[in-house]
Amino acid sequence: MIKLVIDMMGGDNGSKATVGGVKKFLNDIKDCEIVAVGNKEELKSLEGVDRVSIIESKDVVPMECSVMQAMRMKDSSVYKAVNAVLSEKADGIVSSGSTGAFLSLTSLIIKKIEGVSRPALITPFPTKIAGKYVVLLDVGASNENSAEELFQFAKMGEAYYKVVYNKFDPNIYLISNGSEEGKGSPLMKEAYALLKSEENFKGYIEGRYVFGGEADVVVMDGFTGNVFLKTSEGMAKLLSGMMKDAFTYSLSTKIGYLFAKKGFKKLKDTMDYKKVGGALLLGVNTVAVKAHGNSNPDSFYHSIMIAYKLVKNEVVQNIKESLAK
Amino acid sequence: MIKLVIDMMGGDNGSKATVGGVKKFLNDIKDCEIVAVGNKEELKSLEGVDRVSIIESKDVVPMECSVMQAMRMKDSSVYKAVNAVLSEKADGIVSSGSTGAFLSLTSLIIKKIEGVSRPALITPFPTKIAGKYVVLLDVGASNENSAEELFQFAKMGEAYYKVVYNKFDPNIYLISNGSEEGKGSPLMKEAYALLKSEENFKGYIEGRYVFGGEADVVVMDGFTGNVFLKTSEGMAKLLSGMMKDAFTYSLSTKIGYLFAKKGFKKLKDTMDYKKVGGALLLGVNTVAVKAHGNSNPDSFYHSIMIAYKLVKNEVVQNIKESLAK
Repeated sequence: MIKLVIDMMGGDNGSKATVGGVKKFLNDIKDCEIVAVGNKEELKSLEGVDRVSIIESKDVVPMECSVMQAMRMKDSSVYKAVNAVLSEKADGIVSSGSTGAFLSLTSLIIKKIEGVSRPALITPFPTKIAGKYVVLLDVGASNENSAEELFQFAKMGEAYYKVVYNKFDPNIYLISNGSEEGKGSPLMKEAYALLKSEENFKGYIEGRYVFGGEADVVVMDGFTGNVFLKTSEGMAKLLSGMMKDAFTYSLSTKIGYLFAKKGFKKLKDTMDYKKVGGALLLGVNTVAVKAHGNSNPDSFYHSIMIAYKLVKNEVVQNIKESLAK
Repeated sequence: MIKLVIDMMGGDNGSKATVGGVKKFLNDIKDCEIVAVGNKEELKSLEGVDRVSIIESKDVVPMECSVMQAMRMKDSSVYKAVNAVLSEKADGIVSSGSTGAFLSLTSLIIKKIEGVSRPALITPFPTKIAGKYVVLLDVGASNENSAEELFQFAKMGEAYYKVVYNKFDPNIYLISNGSEEGKGSPLMKEAYALLKSEENFKGYIEGRYVFGGEADVVVMDGFTGNVFLKTSEGMAKLLSGMMKDAFTYSLSTKIGYLFAKKGFKKLKDTMDYKKVGGALLLGVNTVAVKAHGNSNPDSFYHSIMIAYKLVKNEVVQNIKESLAK
């Protein structure tokens, strides 16, 4: 039986999103039990439910939260949830709360995989090939990385891609300012030299080709990755705003929307990052899934499902083996 | 009389784009003369035209071109054009050729402004406020920068924004992985400390807010800036592809397009970077405009016009004064 700890309180929608997600998940998956951490009052409907145990927490860390603050709030749902991974011998944890608090607590309390210098936050992005995703890491667990850390990110990303997408020779790239070997910042040049002899390493990739569908894993330092993640979000938001303006421009364009609506459903689905299930912290000794802050029951369900699948497919064990080589 | 040197050969469309652009420009602007550098045969229609002189060149550097190669091809249009800025005592230069060759030749042959440690490539981006642009620098002249260089970029960006957009207190931001002062890579933290007491400096900005319309100038190191530029391009391309797919999905969506078309014209115009006129190399002792590689006569005309306006508004002099303070 797999065991997952869930921070029921952290997200923007609090228990309203998580309770529904947990119930749907328990209904679909039968070989998994849930440790739900949160306000007893709000979790009432989960009391006595088969395969659910409840741990009470009284506080919720704010979305913008310093490491110090997160460490001090010992009665918060995320603090108790991370600790419960150890005390309950659970296989994974899911939270939609503050990314900063979740990352720092998970890294500090749960041990890193042996040999891992820094954990990395990994997240999937849609590509122009329908249904195909590219995963990027690190998108913000660190604010600076060494070349050796980038090398480890490549190995962790490779192991992750194999497990999640069943592709055994994923194309791994390093982000850069040009594709030729001579390009790159001093850091990227050093990482390139370390990765060069790796079988699945395909060289540098520029930002404009990341979404092209050719790359499976794109490695970057946490600072660049965070800028990458948020810039793509910003551009996507800018364009969707413009699209909305375009359709509401006149009566004619509004009629146009009625006719075109169905075509745009696919676009909306693809861009709907929520369904993708959020980001993952790789390199720690558990499956740590960070769901989107504004998760709803449906997307939170997807996040729990991802954690479940990663445990089932032994992603932590796979990373260990890959790094031991 | 203002004098501009034009590399007539470098772009994807060669003289087909540049000759038309130059003619239109000469027609609209009467206090500017043009030094056209290129293949005599292809520039025949410019021979004897008022306010045009021609310098012959035989080679064209390839789009992907190393600094060494660019320096060696002494009969290339871009090499001759950059040198003509000095020999002809011109006020500026425009090229749609290889960015690498243009940047390196301009930096190496034309002196930097006194006190400038590294030139920076600056480029405007559309924002969600119609007609309002945000300028970003450096988007790729360097592959690594110091905090002092980022400080200079802020000053150069400020001077540029004042001249081009007539806003005398532009909001200057530093790109980062979060907006609080404690965030940032070690480099950004150092740059933050240097910029902190500057009147127009507003702090850190995350990638997702760059297009929001609040920021006027966003400063970043050349590596991050290049990733930023190309990632936004990639995301914009991904989404336009999806939009196209959405409209061609079925007969109904195709009809929808006919009704909605007019609304989407504005979106297309805003995203049409070509009209914006390309990027600028700031920090050298001339106005150096890098037009898009795939410029057509119309967009090349816009690039010449930008160079003309920047000379007219004494952007180089403004940067000098701003850095001297």
